Amino acid sequence: MQSIDFSLLAGLTRPTLLLDEQQARKNISRMAEKAARSGVRFRPHFKTHQSARVGEWFREAGVDAITVSSLSMAAYFARHGWRDITVAFPVNPREANLLRELAAKIRLGVLVEAPEVVGFLEETINEPLEVWIKIDCGYHRTGILWEAEEEIVSLARQIAASETLRLAGILTHAGQSYHAESREALEAIYRESVARMREVQKILQLRGLGKVKISVGDTPTCSVVEHFDGVDEVRPGNFIFYDLMQWQLGSCRLGDIALALACPVVARHPEREEVVIYGGAVHLSKEFFLDAQGRQIYGLATVPEAGQAVLPRGEMPVVALSQEHGVVRVPAEDLRRLKIGGLLLVFPVHSCLTADLMGEYLTLTGERIPTMSGPKYRDFVSEKKKTRKRK
Amino acid sequence: MQSIDFSLLAGLTRPTLLLDEQQARKNISRMAEKAARSGVRFRPHFKTHQSARVGEWFREAGVDAITVSSLSMAAYFARHGWRDITVAFPVNPREANLLRELAAKIRLGVLVEAPEVVGFLEETINEPLEVWIKIDCGYHRTGILWEAEEEIVSLARQIAASETLRLAGILTHAGQSYHAESREALEAIYRESVARMREVQKILQLRGLGKVKISVGDTPTCSVVEHFDGVDEVRPGNFIFYDLMQWQLGSCRLGDIALALACPVVARHPEREEVVIYGGAVHLSKEFFLDAQGRQIYGLATVPEAGQAVLPRGEMPVVALSQEHGVVRVPAEDLRRLKIGGLLLVFPVHSCLTADLMGEYLTLTGERIPTMSGPKYRDFVSEKKKTRKRK
Repeated sequence: MQSIDFSLLAGLTRPTLLLDEQQARKNISRMAEKAARSGVRFRPHFKTHQSARVGEWFREAGVDAITVSSLSMAAYFARHGWRDITVAFPVNPREANLLRELAAKIRLGVLVEAPEVVGFLEETINEPLEVWIKIDCGYHRTGILWEAEEEIVSLARQIAASETLRLAGILTHAGQSYHAESREALEAIYRESVARMREVQKILQLRGLGKVKISVGDTPTCSVVEHFDGVDEVRPGNFIFYDLMQWQLGSCRLGDIALALACPVVARHPEREEVVIYGGAVHLSKEFFLDAQGRQIYGLATVPEAGQAVLPRGEMPVVALSQEHGVVRVPAEDLRRLKIGGLLLVFPVHSCLTADLMGEYLTLTGERIPTMSGPKYRDFVSEKKKTRKRK
Repeated sequence: MQSIDFSLLAGLTRPTLLLDEQQARKNISRMAEKAARSGVRFRPHFKTHQSARVGEWFREAGVDAITVSSLSMAAYFARHGWRDITVAFPVNPREANLLRELAAKIRLGVLVEAPEVVGFLEETINEPLEVWIKIDCGYHRTGILWEAEEEIVSLARQIAASETLRLAGILTHAGQSYHAESREALEAIYRESVARMREVQKILQLRGLGKVKISVGDTPTCSVVEHFDGVDEVRPGNFIFYDLMQWQLGSCRLGDIALALACPVVARHPEREEVVIYGGAVHLSKEFFLDAQGRQIYGLATVPEAGQAVLPRGEMPVVALSQEHGVVRVPAEDLRRLKIGGLLLVFPVHSCLTADLMGEYLTLTGERIPTMSGPKYRDFVSEKKKTRKRK
């Protein structure tokens, strides 16, 4: 993260999610250019930022098709002008009304893996719908196992036979990449999952279903491969911000991380080299990584220095989180200079969850950008004042 | 949780946080009565529910003084008629304006543990302010160690010498109770921390500072002790809802838990006895407990049955969570009856974090109750329609 103007920090009163727009745009361009060089469609996942304004940065990088993780999120981005949206989440039949409404409005893609859901879509939707078959290439969260040939072919035929449904292709999320232990392991997961998807593609073609498209996408593998070989579409999401989990996996450098939570210091404990910050589980989430000693680490902090790039420091781990408190280890020499009322910048372990909790970004140029759910904090006292004035 | 009317469940489309008002009121009465029997002030912590409407249930049980975990939360509840609020969080000097505003409006209590913060309050606040000295009785998150006699006496003298600040007493949070392994261990933690607080109280009296009040409060110890001996005030919060963490600690029975997240089933995997639900880390939080095999469990689910009380089932653990997906183990016989589009009820590990994420409760009688941050979901499509109508 680039250096931060101290006048911006001076005005902060509560935990505030800082966003380095320049770095985020760099992260977007890098992935967009790799997709362009590879000749594949770039359909970034918007669940990470959940913000219409941030979405415009993608549009400026040439993106016109996106991925989301819920129908609510699809409705939000449809309202903000997006016309080609894949909901990368199994169809929830309880949302039939919203599904119909959206299918009538935009080019909507959905994921299926069960014949009863295809039946439900046929009965429910009267507009053309892009249907992707969700394939499990080894993550085992959900989807049809890539080896289950008959099951896949049968589902593809059911879709192809429908008047409204269109077999868009096969889609996977190689989430097993989040357990990889090296860049080489990530590259191997990419190669393996793509090989499995191509095998499925070949079988469908041999069985008379045409050459369907292949969609893959998870930030770790999409970040480390040089070229998107063998696929038609990539859907990474987290890469816009990155975070400590991605850094641990080898998907990014510390300098690529575009988000940090500014947290007021509220107590000092020099005797145990710790400070307490206003910044807890309701701001950062309880996502952690394990350090070399096997301790749970909920973030890495740093003290902002005038004119210097801001980077998380390994010797300033967030070692405990309760609802609103965080406990941060701080080396003695830093602790001496750090006063109550000072600020620590905490880099999150999982930027998607932190962004979801905070509901608002503050860019380094001072712009406040809301997400679809809106800011965590509202100023109740001032609101009351406003009400009074109106009387 | 009492039995749920199936017509209520039929209308649910997305993850929805169900609240058994009757059970919550029972939990409130039980704690209020214990406090009354013990002759101590009951100052419940409102960070768990964060809702003005739920706050009224406490008022009906005779509560007129509350605890909150941030100044923003104090402002919210002050706006909803609460006039005696302790902010059980170290003073954050960056919020001087809001602090001044609130001190002028209500009887405000704050926590201090450092002389520079007392100095700050003296300079900043012109209204009377209740000041509690935060004591660390063994949790080691924050506060002055109960044994640091000179430090405590010196801080108390600094407060007592001030014209605006009033030394309200000494306050502790025995958070070490969350690591206890039995009810007996919880009772021992209560006795030990109260004994330490009384020791501090005695020292302050001997040193000429009068007999100050003692405030304690954490749900585990407050739930298991029969009588609040030796203190003036208790501040538990979680007990209104309880959760699986409290059940694991022995603070409550499963039937005492008043919250459950209703989640649509979106995929079935009979081959591994799992289903996938719409309900993930952005709904439940990533808080977990470890089961007997050392696996991380993010919730326990059940299938609602007509006319029967709803209880979490040990054989239906939530074994994985991503942003919006949950993976739940389901025994084969239950899985056979559970269709895509069906509902699972998931009991949360940590109800405070789940409530914070969801921002809204649905009572079993169909009432929607917002928290201070408001509902996670908004219906963007319908909002647009409304806008059009107005034109």
